[in-house]
Amino acid sequence: MHAEIIAVGTEILLGQIVNTNSAFLADKLADLGVNVFYQTVVGDNESRMLETIEIASKRNDLVILSGGLGPTEDDLTKQMVAKFLNEKLVENKDAMLKIENHFAQTGRKMTENNKLQALYIEGSVPIKNHAGMAVGDFYKGAACDFLLLPGPPNELKTMFNKEVEELLKQTYNLNSHLESKVLRFFGIGESKLVTELEDIINAQTNPTIAPYAKTNEVTLRITASATEGKSAEKLIGEMETNVLNRVGNYFYGYGDDNSLQNVVVTELIKNNLSISAAESLTAGLFQSTLAEVAGVSKVYPGGFVTYANAVKSDVLGIPTETIKKHGVVSESIAKQMAIQTQDKMKTDIAISFTGVAGPDELEGQKAGTVWIGLAFKDNPVVAKQFHFAGNRETIRQRSVLSGLKWIFDEINE
Amino acid sequence: MHAEIIAVGTEILLGQIVNTNSAFLADKLADLGVNVFYQTVVGDNESRMLETIEIASKRNDLVILSGGLGPTEDDLTKQMVAKFLNEKLVENKDAMLKIENHFAQTGRKMTENNKLQALYIEGSVPIKNHAGMAVGDFYKGAACDFLLLPGPPNELKTMFNKEVEELLKQTYNLNSHLESKVLRFFGIGESKLVTELEDIINAQTNPTIAPYAKTNEVTLRITASATEGKSAEKLIGEMETNVLNRVGNYFYGYGDDNSLQNVVVTELIKNNLSISAAESLTAGLFQSTLAEVAGVSKVYPGGFVTYANAVKSDVLGIPTETIKKHGVVSESIAKQMAIQTQDKMKTDIAISFTGVAGPDELEGQKAGTVWIGLAFKDNPVVAKQFHFAGNRETIRQRSVLSGLKWIFDEINE
Repeated sequence: MHAEIIAVGTEILLGQIVNTNSAFLADKLADLGVNVFYQTVVGDNESRMLETIEIASKRNDLVILSGGLGPTEDDLTKQMVAKFLNEKLVENKDAMLKIENHFAQTGRKMTENNKLQALYIEGSVPIKNHAGMAVGDFYKGAACDFLLLPGPPNELKTMFNKEVEELLKQTYNLNSHLESKVLRFFGIGESKLVTELEDIINAQTNPTIAPYAKTNEVTLRITASATEGKSAEKLIGEMETNVLNRVGNYFYGYGDDNSLQNVVVTELIKNNLSISAAESLTAGLFQSTLAEVAGVSKVYPGGFVTYANAVKSDVLGIPTETIKKHGVVSESIAKQMAIQTQDKMKTDIAISFTGVAGPDELEGQKAGTVWIGLAFKDNPVVAKQFHFAGNRETIRQRSVLSGLKWIFDEINE
Repeated sequence: MHAEIIAVGTEILLGQIVNTNSAFLADKLADLGVNVFYQTVVGDNESRMLETIEIASKRNDLVILSGGLGPTEDDLTKQMVAKFLNEKLVENKDAMLKIENHFAQTGRKMTENNKLQALYIEGSVPIKNHAGMAVGDFYKGAACDFLLLPGPPNELKTMFNKEVEELLKQTYNLNSHLESKVLRFFGIGESKLVTELEDIINAQTNPTIAPYAKTNEVTLRITASATEGKSAEKLIGEMETNVLNRVGNYFYGYGDDNSLQNVVVTELIKNNLSISAAESLTAGLFQSTLAEVAGVSKVYPGGFVTYANAVKSDVLGIPTETIKKHGVVSESIAKQMAIQTQDKMKTDIAISFTGVAGPDELEGQKAGTVWIGLAFKDNPVVAKQFHFAGNRETIRQRSVLSGLKWIFDEINE
C-alpha cells in the first residue's frame, strides 16, 4: 500500500508557512503501515496541479491532497481532481446547511463562493469537517484512490483523527495490531542514547525502537506487533526493561504529550510535597514552567526572582558580605538561596538557581556556569554545579529542566 | 528562473521531522526573485531519488537538494546526482583536512565512511560548510544546474547565508534591488489586520504587503523594487505611513528577529527606567520573558511570584481581609500588588498579574479573566481587565504580552 502526500498552496511554495500538515499525515500513515515514498508541494495553479496529480496517481495506490478546499479563487484542489477523474462536483447537503447557518448566525452575507466549500466529487464519500466549513472527500478510483483534506492544520488534524483514520483502516484493512509506547529521557543526547543502545538498535526487528531528538530531551518509541504466543504489550515490556537497564538513569516518563514539569508536579501532588523557588539567571522560568501544569496550586504557593544581588540580600536576607566573599555564582549562595526560600515560604522543597546566562562572563565565570541549590525536606541542603553549552535561552532552559530532573530523582530515591 | 527544492530523507517521509529546510529555502529564493513551483520530498532510496531528480531536471533551471550528504550508508544524494550527470566524485582537500583534524582533536578513530563528506561532483564548485563537515556542491549543467546542501538545518542555513546566496546572485544575475521591511503588531489578529488594510492590500503592486500570523502576534512585510525616480526605501516609507495611519495602535517594532520583550527592554534601558513585577497566574513568565533579553540586569533587579493568597499577604503585605473582600482576581488586588512591589523593589515601574489561567473557574470567574496592574513612576496606579480566549498556556502568554504592550505604550505616551 503506497501513498503520496501532496500539499497544495502558494504560501508553502513561497516559504511563508512551514508544511506541518505533510509531517502530521506522514507520521499517521507510518503508524497505519502505509508506505509514503514521496511528498510534493505544488501551488494554486491548474496545469501544475494536474501534472502533479498525474505523476502521483501513476506511482501510488492512494493520493492525499491537503489544502485548496476553501472559498477563494485560489482554491482549486477539488476542481482539479474532479477534472483529472472526469467527474462532476455535487453539493453535500449537511455541509451547505452548516455554511448557511454560520452566515445566518454571524449576520454576514454569504457570497456565492462560499458554496464551493460544500461541494464534493460525485461518486465519492464526503467527509465531515468538525473544525471548519470545507467538506473533505474520499474517492475510490479504478487505479488510484484520492483523499482530499482541508489546509488549516486544526481542520486537517481533526478530520483525520475523527473521520479519516477509521475510514482508511476499514477501506484498506489496515488493522495491523501495532502497539507503541514512548519513553522520555532528559540529560542524555540522542547520539549518546544511540551509542548506549547500539546493539539493541542494530538487532531490532519486532519490536522496533526509534529515538527522536526533541528540544532539550530525547524520546524513544518502541513499536511491536503481536506474534504467535506473545502480545505486543509483552514484547514492548521486555524491550522497555532492556532499554531501562542501560539508560534508566535518564528516564522520567511515558507518552508523546508529556513533559518533565508534568511528571514532577504530578509526583509532588501525589506525595503531598510543597515547593518554592528562588531564581536568579532563570528569572522566573522554573516557576513559570511548573505553573504550566494545571493543579500546581495544590503544592506551589509562590517564590522569588532575585536577579540583582541587592534583592538576594534585601528579600532573602543573604548578607552582602557573604555574596562578596563567595561570589554570587557559587555553591554557598545557591545553598543560602534555597534554605532562605524554604524557610520564608514554609515549603517542603525549595530550589535555587544562580549562574551565568551569558552572553558575557560574570565574576570571571563563563556563560553556562550554573549552581542549583536544593533544600529537600529535612535533608541537608545541597548545591550542584552545571556547565551548559548554548545560547542564553538554552542555558536558562537546561537549568530549569536539570532542576526538575533533580527533584524527580530525589522524590524517586 | 525556475527552481525546485528536493528534501532527501526518510525521517521527513515518515513524519519524524518537519521539513523546515524547504520553507527556509523557498523564502530565501522568493526574496531573490526565483520562482519555486514544486517542492518534493524523497527517501534515501536510489531509484526513487533518480526518478525525482529526472522529473525535476526537466521542469527547472535549478534543482536544489538538501540532505543526504553525511557519512552513513543512507546518505546517497551526491552519488545519485553524480550518477544522473554521469560525473565522478572527487575529493575536496580543505574539507578532508577539516574532517581529519576533527577526529584528531576528539581522539576518535576516523572510519572510511567519513571521507564521503569531503567528496564533491567533478567539475562543480565545492561549497564550504561552516557549521559541519559535509561539503556542499554547485554544478552548472547543460540543461539544468544542481545545488547540493547539507540536511541539518543549522548547517544548511549557515551555508546558504554565508556562501550560496552570493553565489546564486552572481551566477544568475539576481540583483533585483528588492528591499523589504517587516512591521510587527501585537493585539490585533491577522484577519482584523487584513480587514483594516483591505483596500491597500487589494491595490498593491509596488510595494507589495504580506501579513503573516505568528504566535500571538502578526507581522507585515512590505517589499518594493525601485522605480524611475523613487527608491525602494522611499516607496516602503510611504506604504509604512499609510499602514500605520490605520493600525499604528498595534505596532511595536521592526524586523524578523525582534520581539515585544526586546523592544520593551531596549526602551527601558534607553529611558533609564527600572522595572519589577508581582505575578500570580503568570507565575514568573513575565519576568522570565524580560530576562530573555541580554542586558536586562541594568533595569531589572527581580520580583515576586505570589501564586497563593497567603504569599500575597505574607510577602507583599496585602491584608487577608482585603483579598477576601475584593476577591483575588480584582482591580483592587492588581493595584495593591503593583504598588507594594514598586515600593519593596524600589523600581520606577511595577507590574502585576492576577487572573484565572484555567482550565477551572476561580472565585466564580471564568478562565481567561485577567487583571493587570501598573504602577508607572509617580502616576496613580491603574489596573485593567482583560478577557483572553484559549488554553492555560495561551492565556498566560497573552497576559504577559499585554503587560509588555501596556508598558511600551506608557513609555511612548
